[in-house]
Amino acid sequence: MQTELSKQLGVEHAVFGFTPFPAVAAAISRAGGFGVLGAVRYTAPDDLARDLDWMQEHVDGRPYGLDVVMPAKKAEAPGNRTLTEADVEAMIPAAHRRFVEDTLTKHGVPSLAEGEASGWRITGWMEQVARGQLDVAFDYPIKLLANALGSPPADVVARAHDKGVLVAALAGSARHARKHADAGIDIVVAQGYEAGGHTGEIASMVLTPEVTDAVAPLPVLAAGGIGSGEQVAAALALGAQGVWLGSVWLTVTEADLHSRALTRKLLAAGSGDTVRSRALTGKPARQLRTEWTDAWDDPQGPGTLPMPLQGLLVAEAVSRIQKYEVEPLLGTPVGQIVGRMNSERSVQGVFDDLTRGFESAVTRLNRIAGRG
Amino acid sequence: MQTELSKQLGVEHAVFGFTPFPAVAAAISRAGGFGVLGAVRYTAPDDLARDLDWMQEHVDGRPYGLDVVMPAKKAEAPGNRTLTEADVEAMIPAAHRRFVEDTLTKHGVPSLAEGEASGWRITGWMEQVARGQLDVAFDYPIKLLANALGSPPADVVARAHDKGVLVAALAGSARHARKHADAGIDIVVAQGYEAGGHTGEIASMVLTPEVTDAVAPLPVLAAGGIGSGEQVAAALALGAQGVWLGSVWLTVTEADLHSRALTRKLLAAGSGDTVRSRALTGKPARQLRTEWTDAWDDPQGPGTLPMPLQGLLVAEAVSRIQKYEVEPLLGTPVGQIVGRMNSERSVQGVFDDLTRGFESAVTRLNRIAGRG
Repeated sequence: MQTELSKQLGVEHAVFGFTPFPAVAAAISRAGGFGVLGAVRYTAPDDLARDLDWMQEHVDGRPYGLDVVMPAKKAEAPGNRTLTEADVEAMIPAAHRRFVEDTLTKHGVPSLAEGEASGWRITGWMEQVARGQLDVAFDYPIKLLANALGSPPADVVARAHDKGVLVAALAGSARHARKHADAGIDIVVAQGYEAGGHTGEIASMVLTPEVTDAVAPLPVLAAGGIGSGEQVAAALALGAQGVWLGSVWLTVTEADLHSRALTRKLLAAGSGDTVRSRALTGKPARQLRTEWTDAWDDPQGPGTLPMPLQGLLVAEAVSRIQKYEVEPLLGTPVGQIVGRMNSERSVQGVFDDLTRGFESAVTRLNRIAGRG
Repeated sequence: MQTELSKQLGVEHAVFGFTPFPAVAAAISRAGGFGVLGAVRYTAPDDLARDLDWMQEHVDGRPYGLDVVMPAKKAEAPGNRTLTEADVEAMIPAAHRRFVEDTLTKHGVPSLAEGEASGWRITGWMEQVARGQLDVAFDYPIKLLANALGSPPADVVARAHDKGVLVAALAGSARHARKHADAGIDIVVAQGYEAGGHTGEIASMVLTPEVTDAVAPLPVLAAGGIGSGEQVAAALALGAQGVWLGSVWLTVTEADLHSRALTRKLLAAGSGDTVRSRALTGKPARQLRTEWTDAWDDPQGPGTLPMPLQGLLVAEAVSRIQKYEVEPLLGTPVGQIVGRMNSERSVQGVFDDLTRGFESAVTRLNRIAGRG
């Protein structure tokens, strides 16, 4: 699975793996793919430095990258002050806070202990936090910087290019992709409707070739619905220079979801058990459908708040649901491919299956084309 | 593009083309594909016989099929009477009828002339009409009978098999596909989220392999998002034995949409200009997004009625919108692939592009696999 892009990056397979877990990202790079560590959860720069140190020791010299969330549009407080978490907190209506508490109470979710911090924070979505992450990351030999929402700011693109780091950005439409290209990025990740996390409405089968044509000659990675080698072959047939996989790593043996109940839910879920909901961040993101997403998507409820308010509003609640493993509410961003995530494999095992499936799909296509 | 299924049916390319236009269906079969004529609009058996006579004269001896809409669950009136169109008419609330008239008035849509019949009828959705179509169709050498909604009734499957006719049925999920397999059908059409017409929520990239595995060894046709040879290659890489294309034929030169304004709208539309709406039939069906679909999908409006009420409710309105080409309301079922339908080609021109794109995708995959 070698394309121009994978050769340029010096990896064996044009398979990019996005994951919040350093152990998974390192294993992806060791297996011949390109591991991309999601940085959104690192609010303290030291924590990110510690995990990048660990990565550096465990990738066997293979290349890897980092994924940040840096909106091009800066949220500003009155008087051009940079918006703080406290500013955002103050914008959340009391009725929405009550709805969170009522929903948790209804499901018997315990409170966190006094002084216990919420593990899941949304502040990684805010530009000043992402910039702190970048100050750390550029001290490491990362080869790719991916931006998950919107085009990265011009100075960040310039700084990355000065360091020889390629810049990627996710897009859910051809228009969105062209904006990224105009911002000077190097790689577009075409994120299809079926993908986990923030998605648009256009499915991969249509989106991948559309984005590929829109930004040519920039390389495109296909994201959304890919978990097997046959799906890798399909994405590459559509013109992608590689694939971007996220969901499939949630159930690998190297992953640490901190909740066996959540792992069990993922292994049991079908492709129809996800929903594109604003419940987690305020923007549509595909995730497991739960009684929590149902509550937010219920027309009788208060509805969700815009980003970044919704994320801040639910951050502690999500931590409590995860900590106490309250099954009906327990969810995670994940794509429709969750229906095929039915066993726990190692990262290497996933790669073995990907290469085998890819080879068999190519053999089959050659037969259909009368070439063998 | 030769699979076991295309060989079995005696066609050159594993490309199945669904269309309401006999001229298009015949041209698909002549071009080496498998033309499938949609029968839903034929309420009079004689009209269907006339068009099948025409097909018979114009397919140059190539095989073709018919698509009917026959719900497995029979709608019954009180007292086990078969439900008539008048029964269904009587179930439509007056407020919904007023909403139709108000919306048409708001957009200045003229009435039909006195005694002028509505061209578009929903009655083809009703079982007794579909059975009338079958009585006609089995007099012709059709090779395939497809059912667009649900599994066909057991006696219909038996009758088709007696005549040597293969039976296909559309499915939007693996569960749905297994039900079809249990009903004894021969081919499953896996209809992805991005497809035009009635669709589920699972996109083709995930649905195709899932359905293929669920009903193996039955052959599966991939539907949804396919308009290029690269997309054919992708669908076949996912395990399909062929592709089922519908939208792409709407803008071929042989098609007769009876409205240049609608053709222009289709040629101009982007992949984001469709919506999965209940406006047309009462079940979610992908179609051009228009002010008509917006009115039905508006939470402030009365909402849609269940099938078959909605279809009967809007039938005359749709005819009026089409006849008078009222652009803001003018729509049609079509998939997200509409974004790539940007020029009028002949059916043969579409096939030339499909084969060229397929060959180039296979060549590219071989290079990526290090085979050439």
